[in-house]
Amino acid sequence: MSEASRPTCMGIVDEAFRLERTGKPVIHLEKGELDLDTPEVVKEAAIRAIRDNRTRYSDSNGVPEFRRAVCDYYERAYGVSVAPSRVIVNSGSSPAMLELFLALLEPGDEVVLPNPGYPAYPSFVEVARGRVVWAGTREHGFAYTADVVRPHLTPRTAAVLINFPSNPVGVSVGAGALRAFSELGPLIVSDEVYHGLDFDGERPHTILEFSDDAVVVGSFSKGFAMTGWRLGYLIVPERLVDRLIRQHQYVFVGTNTFVQWAAITALEQADLIKQQIRTELRARRDHALAGLPRLGFEVTYVPRGGFYLFARQPDRERPSHAFAADLLQQAHVATTPGTEFGSDGEGYIRFSMSSPIHLIDEAMTRLAVWLAAGAGRRVAAAQSSCCGGSTATSERKDRQPEEVLS
Amino acid sequence: MSEASRPTCMGIVDEAFRLERTGKPVIHLEKGELDLDTPEVVKEAAIRAIRDNRTRYSDSNGVPEFRRAVCDYYERAYGVSVAPSRVIVNSGSSPAMLELFLALLEPGDEVVLPNPGYPAYPSFVEVARGRVVWAGTREHGFAYTADVVRPHLTPRTAAVLINFPSNPVGVSVGAGALRAFSELGPLIVSDEVYHGLDFDGERPHTILEFSDDAVVVGSFSKGFAMTGWRLGYLIVPERLVDRLIRQHQYVFVGTNTFVQWAAITALEQADLIKQQIRTELRARRDHALAGLPRLGFEVTYVPRGGFYLFARQPDRERPSHAFAADLLQQAHVATTPGTEFGSDGEGYIRFSMSSPIHLIDEAMTRLAVWLAAGAGRRVAAAQSSCCGGSTATSERKDRQPEEVLS
Repeated sequence: MSEASRPTCMGIVDEAFRLERTGKPVIHLEKGELDLDTPEVVKEAAIRAIRDNRTRYSDSNGVPEFRRAVCDYYERAYGVSVAPSRVIVNSGSSPAMLELFLALLEPGDEVVLPNPGYPAYPSFVEVARGRVVWAGTREHGFAYTADVVRPHLTPRTAAVLINFPSNPVGVSVGAGALRAFSELGPLIVSDEVYHGLDFDGERPHTILEFSDDAVVVGSFSKGFAMTGWRLGYLIVPERLVDRLIRQHQYVFVGTNTFVQWAAITALEQADLIKQQIRTELRARRDHALAGLPRLGFEVTYVPRGGFYLFARQPDRERPSHAFAADLLQQAHVATTPGTEFGSDGEGYIRFSMSSPIHLIDEAMTRLAVWLAAGAGRRVAAAQSSCCGGSTATSERKDRQPEEVLS
Repeated sequence: MSEASRPTCMGIVDEAFRLERTGKPVIHLEKGELDLDTPEVVKEAAIRAIRDNRTRYSDSNGVPEFRRAVCDYYERAYGVSVAPSRVIVNSGSSPAMLELFLALLEPGDEVVLPNPGYPAYPSFVEVARGRVVWAGTREHGFAYTADVVRPHLTPRTAAVLINFPSNPVGVSVGAGALRAFSELGPLIVSDEVYHGLDFDGERPHTILEFSDDAVVVGSFSKGFAMTGWRLGYLIVPERLVDRLIRQHQYVFVGTNTFVQWAAITALEQADLIKQQIRTELRARRDHALAGLPRLGFEVTYVPRGGFYLFARQPDRERPSHAFAADLLQQAHVATTPGTEFGSDGEGYIRFSMSSPIHLIDEAMTRLAVWLAAGAGRRVAAAQSSCCGGSTATSERKDRQPEEVLS
């Protein structure tokens, strides 16, 4: 990863875990997962599949019935027709994206990514020896559009990654914007893991409505409360199927069989499950939206879908990683510094709606006390340049940080 | 992959699946998995974990209790002490090896691999832009030793991969041979996924008894009949922990949580579970060992552990992929051509003990009829140069292959 884009620390989740194990009452607004349990109907389907001994290898690219169910879902939700042979299943959307870029890129090939964007995107590209090209969105109010991407295209552009509803901003777009991406030229890789979690109730659109020569990245983590199940997939153009399956057979072998059978049930119940999650997420977002501006945060873009709210810090000069690290250590509110998502995130904090409303309220109270006490400012930014890891902690144990709310 | 090492086809498993779906009574002696169900005690542990909602992200590198259980098992089985921080969990040993080589190799770094060996090994290295260096074992009676490896070491050697009991030959080695590997110099990567399946009853040894600066690749697929669960791990030297965890957090995110909880139970019951599987495998091996020589196969190395028996074809001049492809199409016995495992496998067929004894018997009968009819020889080798895939099948549908036993 380039130094400019490399997050200063990825350990805030682990540090929050660690604090919690020492008995600290951490409020989790940093997680990419909800506190909701996986729906019972999905759990019971998994249990049936285990009892039925669906515990052996399936076809390497995925259980045929599951790949068919993915296609049926895309037909139902978006009106697009996809052949099951184009679906390649993996243990989460992350290894799926890794295998995509490993198969796609020659050294030096370029992939355009949104800045800010999901922190793992550059890793997939760079592990595959590709080159990341950042398309900054901050000056466009965080809107990531074909027009924002176009100046970054070169003869080496192998793919343009899009992600709606977006992480970390919650940007959602309509048909016109997707069509414009599809007309840019390079392969569009559409990370649709937050699909179905749009708040405005409009029918969402997939890139596949506008081009068959595009890649969809799908997952069950976000829309079905199935993070710990590790199930994702790619839908790829026909021309890439053979290349990907060949690599997949050798390098990943396959994906958990009974989890795929359970996910068929999840897809059958998708409308109901996603509706429930969406309703809860919108209520949480509305609550955070009401609270944060009063504390001096500026919500530049009101999220239209997904898990997150991306807000400008009250203290705009302070590095966001220092802000988030001290907020965790001192007030035990875990958030994610905007710089984790790229340089355009500096000065911003990502709040995940990963905790229920009463804890979002409690977090607002802690934030208010913490900000009023000016606690953060008493710690030099240089001292708080890393947010996690046992090494950092042991180095800093003489600091006795003021723990305002523990 | 270099052309010399590239298997001509990887589709025999899929082709066997396809034939079976058309109603053909395929006997599976090609699979890297047994017909045995996952032990009930493990299934029930998974069901409990699902009911207990262990369905969310865990620590990225694995559930701490599971990593501790892996270390306890290594202490119990081998008397070695391993810190849980050195264990990195992934969705099978294949993605685990991929992440190892992605983190370890710079372009052009060399990894020494056994020839013949597991067909995916070169893929892990080459996807990571490393260079495969083959250590041929055929002229050494398929024994893979430090002495066989030594002439292949260069200043660019980043790692030497070892695998005992081995796939495809079933080679097993003692303490002295492992110690010699550990003294070679380069990092030893020890694929121990068939551990606990040694037939001679001697205490097996891990590379970690001889060096802490080595990597173990572990899995639950083979020793616990858990192929479809997709659970594996690396044990890495302290010096590699940070590098691997950093990459792992971004690129794989994590591994199924309730599967890890179930695997704790598997490890607690490991001695009993592996004993049962070992006993069954040895009985199957003994049966195949009694049958194959009578049909003209030569068993160069009597397997001392694992799933497989590697035997020289009666018709030694015939390409092994042609032999295996016609055996599948005409007698519906699925095996794996020796060339899948490298150039030193030419003229050999790998029989997996993946089916029960009565089907191994039935396969011997089909083989006898098929060989006696000389069926294979009537098809030109050039015509049968690929064993699988729907394309190959449709191209060849005018052949009307003589199906001696369908």
